[in-house]
Amino acid sequence: MSGRDEKPDTKQVIFNISKEHNFPEWYSEICKVAELADIRYNVKGFTPFLPWSMMSMNLMFDYLEANLQEKGHLPMLFPTVIPESNLTKEAEHVEGFTPQVFWIREIGDGQKLEEALALRPTSETAIYPMYSLWVRSWRDLPMKRYQRCTVFRSEVKSTRPFLRGREFLWIESHNVFATHQDALNQVMEDLEITKEVVTGDFGIPVMVFKRTQWDKFPGGLNTYAADTLMPDGKVIQLPSTHDLGDNFARAFDVKYLNEENEMVYAWQTCYGPAISRIYGAMISIHGDDKGLRIPYKIAPYQVVIVPIFKDKTKDEVMKYCRNIEKTLRKAGIRVHLDDTDQTPGWKFNFWEMKGVPIRIEAGPRDLKEKKVVALRRDTMERESFDLTSLKKRIPKLGGAIDANLRSIAESKFEGLIVDADSIGAIEDALSNGKIARVPFCTTEMEGQGCGDEIKDRTGGEVRGTRIDIDDPLVGVCVVCGKAASEMVYVARSY
Amino acid sequence: MSGRDEKPDTKQVIFNISKEHNFPEWYSEICKVAELADIRYNVKGFTPFLPWSMMSMNLMFDYLEANLQEKGHLPMLFPTVIPESNLTKEAEHVEGFTPQVFWIREIGDGQKLEEALALRPTSETAIYPMYSLWVRSWRDLPMKRYQRCTVFRSEVKSTRPFLRGREFLWIESHNVFATHQDALNQVMEDLEITKEVVTGDFGIPVMVFKRTQWDKFPGGLNTYAADTLMPDGKVIQLPSTHDLGDNFARAFDVKYLNEENEMVYAWQTCYGPAISRIYGAMISIHGDDKGLRIPYKIAPYQVVIVPIFKDKTKDEVMKYCRNIEKTLRKAGIRVHLDDTDQTPGWKFNFWEMKGVPIRIEAGPRDLKEKKVVALRRDTMERESFDLTSLKKRIPKLGGAIDANLRSIAESKFEGLIVDADSIGAIEDALSNGKIARVPFCTTEMEGQGCGDEIKDRTGGEVRGTRIDIDDPLVGVCVVCGKAASEMVYVARSY
Repeated sequence: MSGRDEKPDTKQVIFNISKEHNFPEWYSEICKVAELADIRYNVKGFTPFLPWSMMSMNLMFDYLEANLQEKGHLPMLFPTVIPESNLTKEAEHVEGFTPQVFWIREIGDGQKLEEALALRPTSETAIYPMYSLWVRSWRDLPMKRYQRCTVFRSEVKSTRPFLRGREFLWIESHNVFATHQDALNQVMEDLEITKEVVTGDFGIPVMVFKRTQWDKFPGGLNTYAADTLMPDGKVIQLPSTHDLGDNFARAFDVKYLNEENEMVYAWQTCYGPAISRIYGAMISIHGDDKGLRIPYKIAPYQVVIVPIFKDKTKDEVMKYCRNIEKTLRKAGIRVHLDDTDQTPGWKFNFWEMKGVPIRIEAGPRDLKEKKVVALRRDTMERESFDLTSLKKRIPKLGGAIDANLRSIAESKFEGLIVDADSIGAIEDALSNGKIARVPFCTTEMEGQGCGDEIKDRTGGEVRGTRIDIDDPLVGVCVVCGKAASEMVYVARSY
Repeated sequence: MSGRDEKPDTKQVIFNISKEHNFPEWYSEICKVAELADIRYNVKGFTPFLPWSMMSMNLMFDYLEANLQEKGHLPMLFPTVIPESNLTKEAEHVEGFTPQVFWIREIGDGQKLEEALALRPTSETAIYPMYSLWVRSWRDLPMKRYQRCTVFRSEVKSTRPFLRGREFLWIESHNVFATHQDALNQVMEDLEITKEVVTGDFGIPVMVFKRTQWDKFPGGLNTYAADTLMPDGKVIQLPSTHDLGDNFARAFDVKYLNEENEMVYAWQTCYGPAISRIYGAMISIHGDDKGLRIPYKIAPYQVVIVPIFKDKTKDEVMKYCRNIEKTLRKAGIRVHLDDTDQTPGWKFNFWEMKGVPIRIEAGPRDLKEKKVVALRRDTMERESFDLTSLKKRIPKLGGAIDANLRSIAESKFEGLIVDADSIGAIEDALSNGKIARVPFCTTEMEGQGCGDEIKDRTGGEVRGTRIDIDDPLVGVCVVCGKAASEMVYVARSY
């Protein structure tokens, strides 16, 4: 079977880069060839997101927002600009974020502002002064709100599309509670959301850590974060959630009248899933040497239809394909019929590179037998089935694809953790692409010296202690030799 | 029937302000009492949007984006910041927008940027340099893209939540075509979208104008805009769409290889529905003296259930209500069961003020008869029906409510237009809350003097010529007495 005779002007798109051996090149090239982001925008670290990534990120927002709303969070939207005096109210917070802030001091043709405005690097200092007005009594609590927006940080590290940019897309959820225990429960609920959505819906497995005191959110009590593993063996932080204690409540005067009629400080948490970063991790983890493999749930097109015909069979094949398209669309499936004048071979390569989970091929014989051929992008396996079973078969295939992609990703976690009781053992583990589990003196501030030494000598970072599994305590701190109080994980990281 | 005996601490919310006689107060109060926006944020003109408005605005985005996507527009997202050198490339455009721009010249602790960055007031100058790279041949056209974002303009006029803010929510669609005719067709399609969504889905009637040359988008050829009528008799601009000609293509070098193998300039349009402004107009137009009346299609809660019980009937009534809630939710209806310990009377007032389209009341007698009582917020009429017909009845009621709200809004357009052949007649029309149809010399730049004089003497603005109806040409220009070349409309405006 062949396509039409006239040759279009575009040459074949054959993506073929070893993801395992040359991940940085794979990543840059797929961003370019699949038209995900364009790094040629003329402000350093700021990158336009193109339709193929934006459509998936919009679906990712939908999944996260639906889950948040089910758990009682309501959407809101605060201004992008924060007055300097707000930003400086919480001492540790201002110290942590000020070096990264973009400042507005002027409007129009040189009119000076009375007070400088920051582009939000995160919104605690915008939102909590208003929470101080909104929270009055125990009846108002819990107050669970979130916003979907972009935030701005002048990163010093080199930027990469999606993974690290100076403006990124996220959801930030900000919550107020009557007790510290309620706040801690929220932190655990946030981690559940991460597992349900990031792992469950997007197929990205995570390990959950309590971060060290020197690596926590500036101004908070404790940070809990989910890390996943990138193809180059480095870990990357996906959503983190912060137990703010009553630190911000004291700085911003967020108080409530309790049932005993006393005004007391409230307890707060915040949670910040960065959609653009999760997207970057998602394409890295699921992709293969032929290009993207996007999970069915978040694929812009879940199915692409490629008609296969000769001149004299064109009309009937196109009609058959439009019928398939209509049936799938009516069933709520995101489907695209590629009716351009490229050859079928060109279309096969192109949509494989773009990562569409299911390709339907239909030609004269399929039409006669009332069948369709479906190819799974994850396994590249073809199957043929009756047209009548189309509506049922496709979502089922989609589910199987997502389960398979997730299981492939999870298999990379097997044997990943290696116990290391010395600096040398950590170095060995890291150079073999592993993560080291290490006896450590303390993740309180006093332990920072030992953490820094591990970093200097091995290139690995202390990611904190696991809270999703129990780690029996054995040995002495690999640096200072004091009795270990915790088992920490050391990994190279983004 | 009564609620529980213990009295909660919140006093009755009884909203009662005449919208017709005191619209500014009505508007400010409803924004506050219904918790739509909070003007106490400490940057002038920047207002947090609260859940009750945000939930509706998200639904409004969904309707608009679905319609755009159906018509072949794909989502994308550009950076918020635009380099100064981009902004200055189109001369009229920079002159029009620079006075309103917020400038970033510094990051962190005083580090100067090499080039100043503007917060986007609109994104032509961010997007078109990239279009210049993306558009190569006639095969790439039409290119139809949009983004959902906020934009920033340092308004000199006084701001009001939603209607005029220094940061507002919108969609901007930017499109490239091979011919000027294709671009003009897009402008007409944009006006169709406005009618289908803003009028069809949100119930806001509009008149469509071609703006005068002195009131068009800076840098474009022509602006076409939809105006609606506010309760105070002023008109307000809802979406506008711009025929950019090839002006921006020449400034930003957007060229393509045509089928004759020549590089030629492309033709462009842009369309900018401001969701927050449409929301402000929507609540103003549909509200009544008791508060909001939100259309069923875009109501955060389409149905609120108020249980009515005495102590001994509480359990069975609550169970009955939860059953109703579950049935509706399963049917995809946005439903809220108010199970707080306020009295039914308190809940009735509260949810009427919040504008929930349908209230279901259920007490012991309804339970025994397996019935529910539904109240329509638009007419305040009650009806009772069998529980078994719930799933069918509610969406039907919702449709009737939306049709009624739209028809009430449309009735304000009746008799609104008055012919005026002199300045005095314009003054009379405007002081009676009407819009004047006026013979006018020309809407080309030469007519600006006459337009300014009308404004100075009557307080009304020339909104342009109608493109949705034919206006027979009669008389001479009301200012200069030259033969009229157009019939223009004069109205007081936002």
